[in-house]
Amino acid sequence: MAEAVHSFAPGMLTATDLLEAHERIRPFIHRTPVFSSTSINHLVNATVFFKCENLQKAGAFKARGATNAVQALDRQARQNGVATHSSGNHAQALTWAASIAGTKAFLVMPSNSSRVKISAVRGYGGTIVFCEPTLKAREATLSRVIKETGATEIHPYNNYRVIAGQATAALELLEDTSGLEIVMAPVGGGGLLSGTALACTYFGREIPVFGAEPELANDAYLSFTHKKLIPSRNPQTIADGLRTSLGDLTFPIILKHVSRIYTVKEESIIRAMRLIWERLKILVEPSASVPMAVLLEGHPEMKKKKIGIILSGGNADLDALPWI
Amino acid sequence: MAEAVHSFAPGMLTATDLLEAHERIRPFIHRTPVFSSTSINHLVNATVFFKCENLQKAGAFKARGATNAVQALDRQARQNGVATHSSGNHAQALTWAASIAGTKAFLVMPSNSSRVKISAVRGYGGTIVFCEPTLKAREATLSRVIKETGATEIHPYNNYRVIAGQATAALELLEDTSGLEIVMAPVGGGGLLSGTALACTYFGREIPVFGAEPELANDAYLSFTHKKLIPSRNPQTIADGLRTSLGDLTFPIILKHVSRIYTVKEESIIRAMRLIWERLKILVEPSASVPMAVLLEGHPEMKKKKIGIILSGGNADLDALPWI
Repeated sequence: MAEAVHSFAPGMLTATDLLEAHERIRPFIHRTPVFSSTSINHLVNATVFFKCENLQKAGAFKARGATNAVQALDRQARQNGVATHSSGNHAQALTWAASIAGTKAFLVMPSNSSRVKISAVRGYGGTIVFCEPTLKAREATLSRVIKETGATEIHPYNNYRVIAGQATAALELLEDTSGLEIVMAPVGGGGLLSGTALACTYFGREIPVFGAEPELANDAYLSFTHKKLIPSRNPQTIADGLRTSLGDLTFPIILKHVSRIYTVKEESIIRAMRLIWERLKILVEPSASVPMAVLLEGHPEMKKKKIGIILSGGNADLDALPWI
Repeated sequence: MAEAVHSFAPGMLTATDLLEAHERIRPFIHRTPVFSSTSINHLVNATVFFKCENLQKAGAFKARGATNAVQALDRQARQNGVATHSSGNHAQALTWAASIAGTKAFLVMPSNSSRVKISAVRGYGGTIVFCEPTLKAREATLSRVIKETGATEIHPYNNYRVIAGQATAALELLEDTSGLEIVMAPVGGGGLLSGTALACTYFGREIPVFGAEPELANDAYLSFTHKKLIPSRNPQTIADGLRTSLGDLTFPIILKHVSRIYTVKEESIIRAMRLIWERLKILVEPSASVPMAVLLEGHPEMKKKKIGIILSGGNADLDALPWI
């Protein structure tokens, strides 16, 4: 494995880094299918290609970045394991990636995490360290765990290896379709969106990349517009995967390579989610439905276009469907 | 197109008929993917391959049989259209198949059909003729419609072209997997199960084929055991696609080519349905979950086996999930 790729610096994520990430993770992840629906195309007056990362290992694109980060660790680091604080898909993905690499995962999770998520992490063999449900407690607990175990922190998005891994979803989408005119991805911390933008810049002949964000968690929209990082404060959107704010590694990539960020209403997210379930017969979580919500809200510049959408994840709560 | 295949007689469905059906429908249908889940394999101590007909056109395998029947019609018959009585997936599938063939579809539907199903049929351009919700009224209304329009009746399962079409799902499953030791399909009217059994007999080196049926609609189990047709009377299972009874064309094929029929409890069907949604991230309707329910109930003869399952359809009611 080339040593060069270990020495990332801001702005240094190259086309080669993305291809190497893809080679590194390919034996472990699913090459997810690309679906389409005639009735959805009619409804939005466009041709939409859905890259189904909800069908990815551990139920989300997060398995890509986590696998890339874990597989790139040296032998010493693998012995000590990996750690993160997360109550969402990254916790599951990192635990899964650690388990297939034969290394340990330490997950700092807030004490009010759902039982479903706790049991999913335990199912993959992760060690959970509970803490108070505040960012401060999460960060303090993670620091302590890392100090005690020597584990390597794998941040959910503010990490170049993670970004390179997430970029591989768009790489595959570009390979498996032709003539895309727009690519759209949801944006929370920005790992998926920044990776998607890099992939389209390097391998998609600079297809415009759009970010899709809930109005109630519009930090990326505000940061993008004002050209400076403006974090969200305790956003309440149903799209729980998008409540995080951009990081200082993802933001510059987004600023440089993303064409536009759209925000959507909560009711559009729910409508989009239900539509995808009904027409594509697949489960997506609210966060994954946000780009479809942009299409439903109707923007003239997208009419009649060939649009690729990354369906980011499928870890929906089957006991609490938002339309019931 | 070979004229020979128009002259079907009982017991005469050959390997060639199945291959011709596949060639005939291939341009129109999806070649659906085969999914698997490590966690489901662990849970049932077997290796399970799910043929995803829930991702088929119109949401169910029914599109295969309907397309085969419609595409095989001669020019005169195409002018007059096709007709059936159905309140379920066959109505949607036949309407869809007629629409892509540029012919008309007349659907006799009970007046208490769900609005979802009515609007799906209308969405594909079908003409609905409502009738009282009894089998007698449905049959009488269908006879009248056929007399008035000259349309060709396409029965949902008791039709050799339909059976040959349904067989193509198993054909593809056999092509896309290797070493299957068991193939399992749900059984209602028997179109899917008889087609699956023929495909495995002709092309699967006689892999044992099992039928899966709700205990509350066990007409196939009883007919199979007693070797004579014993219809259900108003069965109440949640698996609404399996409430119909075997037909006189499907039953002899099942008797000859199916190894065994299993029945399952309602709670196993619901548990299986939820498990498939959660682990595979795809929607399946209760009827499609019945073979998985057999695995959950646990039968020693299936342990450690490589098992193919036809997930028959995904037209679930999103407003009434059985576990909520």
